[in-house]
Amino acid sequence: MTATRFFSDNAAAVHPAVMDALAAANHVDTAYDGDGLSRSLDGAFSDLFETPCEVVWIPTGTAANSIILAHFVRPWQGILCYEEAHIEVDECGAPSFYSGGAKLMPLPGRGAKIDAAALKTRLAGIRKDVHQVQPAAISITNATEYGLSWHPEEIGAISEVAKAEGLKLHMDGARFANAVAFQGCAPADVTWRAGVDALSFGFTKNGAMMAEAIVFFGGSGGSGVRELKKRGGHLLSKGRFVAAQIRAMLKDDLWLANARAANAGAAELARACEGRLMYPVEANELFVRLTADEAARLRAAGFDFYDWGEGAARLVVSWDQDAAAVGPFAAAIAAL
Amino acid sequence: MTATRFFSDNAAAVHPAVMDALAAANHVDTAYDGDGLSRSLDGAFSDLFETPCEVVWIPTGTAANSIILAHFVRPWQGILCYEEAHIEVDECGAPSFYSGGAKLMPLPGRGAKIDAAALKTRLAGIRKDVHQVQPAAISITNATEYGLSWHPEEIGAISEVAKAEGLKLHMDGARFANAVAFQGCAPADVTWRAGVDALSFGFTKNGAMMAEAIVFFGGSGGSGVRELKKRGGHLLSKGRFVAAQIRAMLKDDLWLANARAANAGAAELARACEGRLMYPVEANELFVRLTADEAARLRAAGFDFYDWGEGAARLVVSWDQDAAAVGPFAAAIAAL
Amino acid sequence: MTATRFFSDNAAAVHPAVMDALAAANHVDTAYDGDGLSRSLDGAFSDLFETPCEVVWIPTGTAANSIILAHFVRPWQGILCYEEAHIEVDECGAPSFYSGGAKLMPLPGRGAKIDAAALKTRLAGIRKDVHQVQPAAISITNATEYGLSWHPEEIGAISEVAKAEGLKLHMDGARFANAVAFQGCAPADVTWRAGVDALSFGFTKNGAMMAEAIVFFGGSGGSGVRELKKRGGHLLSKGRFVAAQIRAMLKDDLWLANARAANAGAAELARACEGRLMYPVEANELFVRLTADEAARLRAAGFDFYDWGEGAARLVVSWDQDAAAVGPFAAAIAAL
Amino acid sequence: MTATRFFSDNAAAVHPAVMDALAAANHVDTAYDGDGLSRSLDGAFSDLFETPCEVVWIPTGTAANSIILAHFVRPWQGILCYEEAHIEVDECGAPSFYSGGAKLMPLPGRGAKIDAAALKTRLAGIRKDVHQVQPAAISITNATEYGLSWHPEEIGAISEVAKAEGLKLHMDGARFANAVAFQGCAPADVTWRAGVDALSFGFTKNGAMMAEAIVFFGGSGGSGVRELKKRGGHLLSKGRFVAAQIRAMLKDDLWLANARAANAGAAELARACEGRLMYPVEANELFVRLTADEAARLRAAGFDFYDWGEGAARLVVSWDQDAAAVGPFAAAIAAL
Repeated sequence: MTATRFFSDNAAAVHPAVMDALAAANHVDTAYDGDGLSRSLDGAFSDLFETPCEVVWIPTGTAANSIILAHFVRPWQGILCYEEAHIEVDECGAPSFYSGGAKLMPLPGRGAKIDAAALKTRLAGIRKDVHQVQPAAISITNATEYGLSWHPEEIGAISEVAKAEGLKLHMDGARFANAVAFQGCAPADVTWRAGVDALSFGFTKNGAMMAEAIVFFGGSGGSGVRELKKRGGHLLSKGRFVAAQIRAMLKDDLWLANARAANAGAAELARACEGRLMYPVEANELFVRLTADEAARLRAAGFDFYDWGEGAARLVVSWDQDAAAVGPFAAAIAAL
Repeated sequence: MTATRFFSDNAAAVHPAVMDALAAANHVDTAYDGDGLSRSLDGAFSDLFETPCEVVWIPTGTAANSIILAHFVRPWQGILCYEEAHIEVDECGAPSFYSGGAKLMPLPGRGAKIDAAALKTRLAGIRKDVHQVQPAAISITNATEYGLSWHPEEIGAISEVAKAEGLKLHMDGARFANAVAFQGCAPADVTWRAGVDALSFGFTKNGAMMAEAIVFFGGSGGSGVRELKKRGGHLLSKGRFVAAQIRAMLKDDLWLANARAANAGAAELARACEGRLMYPVEANELFVRLTADEAARLRAAGFDFYDWGEGAARLVVSWDQDAAAVGPFAAAIAAL
Repeated sequence: MTATRFFSDNAAAVHPAVMDALAAANHVDTAYDGDGLSRSLDGAFSDLFETPCEVVWIPTGTAANSIILAHFVRPWQGILCYEEAHIEVDECGAPSFYSGGAKLMPLPGRGAKIDAAALKTRLAGIRKDVHQVQPAAISITNATEYGLSWHPEEIGAISEVAKAEGLKLHMDGARFANAVAFQGCAPADVTWRAGVDALSFGFTKNGAMMAEAIVFFGGSGGSGVRELKKRGGHLLSKGRFVAAQIRAMLKDDLWLANARAANAGAAELARACEGRLMYPVEANELFVRLTADEAARLRAAGFDFYDWGEGAARLVVSWDQDAAAVGPFAAAIAAL
Repeated sequence: MTATRFFSDNAAAVHPAVMDALAAANHVDTAYDGDGLSRSLDGAFSDLFETPCEVVWIPTGTAANSIILAHFVRPWQGILCYEEAHIEVDECGAPSFYSGGAKLMPLPGRGAKIDAAALKTRLAGIRKDVHQVQPAAISITNATEYGLSWHPEEIGAISEVAKAEGLKLHMDGARFANAVAFQGCAPADVTWRAGVDALSFGFTKNGAMMAEAIVFFGGSGGSGVRELKKRGGHLLSKGRFVAAQIRAMLKDDLWLANARAANAGAAELARACEGRLMYPVEANELFVRLTADEAARLRAAGFDFYDWGEGAARLVVSWDQDAAAVGPFAAAIAAL
């Protein structure tokens, strides 16, 4: 269960408790999402978020994001997002596919956070006529694509604009656990209490096998969501095996424990990377300045990671990272 | 691992060998489909089908069917299929969604088999102009929606028409294993050798957890397929766990053994249902005439199954059906 | 302005009053649909239909039908229609394109009229689950594809089912004028008063150049309609030239006069075709039994028309049919 | 036929020769695009462009652009364009609609011209994997959205990149006539000879009523184009009236004469606007710095035009601009 790579949490192992839950779910049961595990999700998330939630399990984050966005916008409308958001640059156009051609409308931002002022400027520049695509949703990522965690007030500033303009607010939470762990807040604080309408709550990177939760707050779900899921081919016939993973991740706050472990490793590496950090480290990812020569030396010493353009690298600490591997990597970076 | 229900193979358990394969795949590896297990599929299926195959794993049959069909037709074209085909009546329009609006063109047939003559008549009735939707593919299901298994020559008759008209031939093989087990032929005999261009090879109903294979024969795959999969949100980050299920099902022909077990149970029930059978039993499903009163009596005796409209029922034997449960059910039916 | 053909009203000329209206609109004006003519349509149709209407001009009937239907259904829903409806067989899948993949659900019927009883049966057969496409609209054609005109009570029977099931009712009125002329009723009687939610009111076949009106009753239009039109590329920059055609057709009930002329010609032919008629003649189209030899003799005598499969023909009388040509054709048929 | 506005060429009148051509086409003829006028377009444009062309008439520029682009890209691919291109900001997402969700990929540029170097940089930054949208086409506008005209060599630099990367090159020629008139070159020089694969050749702004030509060079058209047109609802039943407009515009190079007239007016205004011009004036549009007070004074003097954000205005000279109106406007500006 250990890992010598700092490559991607997408490549991590599955937590033993999740494997156990799969075994425990291995009996004949109702097909699709009529089983008890699937039907328990609304309640479990409502408890976690301290508010009534509507929850749909889904095997991938791409599908989670796309279904929520397709539910929130009509084909001729738009989705405001950070210009390097995962939905914009890494999902092969999935949100446009699911929504029937809605337009992603990219915005600049620091550390992959949309700025409320830039958002207002952009909105003010859109003519309210039939020729221009009118946005109907904003999507933010938490933790961001550059490893930052949103403060509740920052989200509030965005949601204030959203509400004023009648836009829905979606949060891509592929690394939501890491963000919450960093903030040390209640999950509610960075979601519905801050004005978020729906969350893609990721578990796969954080210890599950293929399990994400679409979480609707404040009644923002409803009619159409399950059709989008079925039509996309995501209604697994033995769906209880996805729900089981999620329940295992929620049990005893395993999701939080795993995220804390990953964040701790990232923090340890961050200390060794001082002066190299391109962004504050507020989750489990580091973006560091690293020359090609330095990168080669680290790789020669047995550490693997992503190059991030020229002169930079992305280091990711996974939930299952061997604590014993982090120290040597930190030392190797410090010694460069 | 036993089942008292004859409800649906969708609700069955996962085979222990598949569970073991998941455990064995639980280590850090390359994300998405770059891992060794995923990359081994082309070879494994090429061996099984005795011809070079291009294979893509996918979590659901709906996605498998839709991606193949979307690859074969353009949005303004059509897909000929049986009028009660799963793609036509049970997938919430998924093939239309994936293809960008292609039209399903339903045909009559006995036992859910399209008839080659009816197919020709339909094709002859389509004006070759821009006003009418021109078909570009035919989809057949094997075993069919009514539990029949296609003979190689029957498929050949369809594919002859397909080739003459320049149409691709797709086989929905949600229960392909059961069909092959019944025919006792090589998998090649009812696929590419009979003119099939691509197969949705189902494993989930037959012992896997969520694993189907898209199999392209004769170079019919290629550019665009992986984009359809990614865009649909089906490129799982820990994809090795899907590939592992498939490899476990292929190992020592587990897929065939499971299908034979299910078919044997169905055959045993069939003997008890003589006079009630609506269709020959050539896989693991039975469609039987049963009055509401008879159905109630069987249910009271502890047997569960699907009502199939008025005066009929569908009985499905799963791979994991307890042999000891089949006998009593057969006896109960015989005693009605 | 005369025609020796009985081929198609699609091929007819444009009425002089429409040409005059185009000339009168030929001055600089606001672009798109902001001009006075475009803005006058709501009022003009509200007068004609004796109820507040929302009206959008559009150059083709295919676009009119598709935009209304796309407005009424979501991509995963369905549209019930007659199995040979124009939207089903002659629009290259346009309604599916505009709606993002909604499913046309064909129904049988006599003379291209959906039967209310068959409609109820079909609806009862749809499982109310996420696997099956749920219809959200019914589309009927008036005059029908076989030249029949709907009686108000027949429409009422359909709309009663529609209302009970929460379905919108659309009328494809490519030959609405001919239908109203035959019934001798108020336009309201066969539309909103009988439960129709929206009408594609065709003018092109009936004397315009390229002009149809999308007419919404009872507030069924609204948000999204103009986006569908713009996104489909149908918001002409010099839109006043479409609106002008429609206003010319409405002026002094020219639409009705033209339809009456065409219907009268059809009635004259019908008398000559007694014993050959496949359907009652209730508009400007005749479907007649005609052997290949008889068809050849008529063509040799200088009359042109459509073959309608084997042993049948379609004869269409256009608004501009030379009255002097109808008599000889009638005589020629009678003499066969 | 005169205009006191400098508002938009979209609002201009229709040239008398076009009106005459409509009258001349007003007789019974084959429906859709089977008539002689429609069928004459391939030849007429092949002559004009000195190469075999495939030509499809279409009522709007939005539809022309969208159909060409949908023909060139698959739903999961992208279209590179200038960040303020009409297809990106003013067509309500039509190219995405027609293409089934293809992504517009905006690029910076001076005067609305994509820069070949910026294009290369952007292309180099796209990972060649399934996660990122891969572009399949480039779209440039000529004359550009800021009134510049492309030099053949500039187009050549773009097409060189396109060819190296296997991308199709589309030209949005809503004001193609003005661009050609300014360059004083052969139409071929700024299209296929410079590497353009398909052109949206606009006639509506330049004297037609609703008529644009989709022109494919080098065999880039073919299968699928007419289906896209029909499916979009653009196959007018009396299509000869669109073809007639185009033939009238081509006759005796009326398109060129009209464009020259408009350009001459713009040039006269440009001389009065020296010091105010934001871009060189190379067609019939001027973008000028103008304070709110100055704009108000001009309007008070009876001149109308578009505000272009704060402190700027867009002035458009139409083909039918009264020469006598240009002088006073020029004088009024000069006198500010």
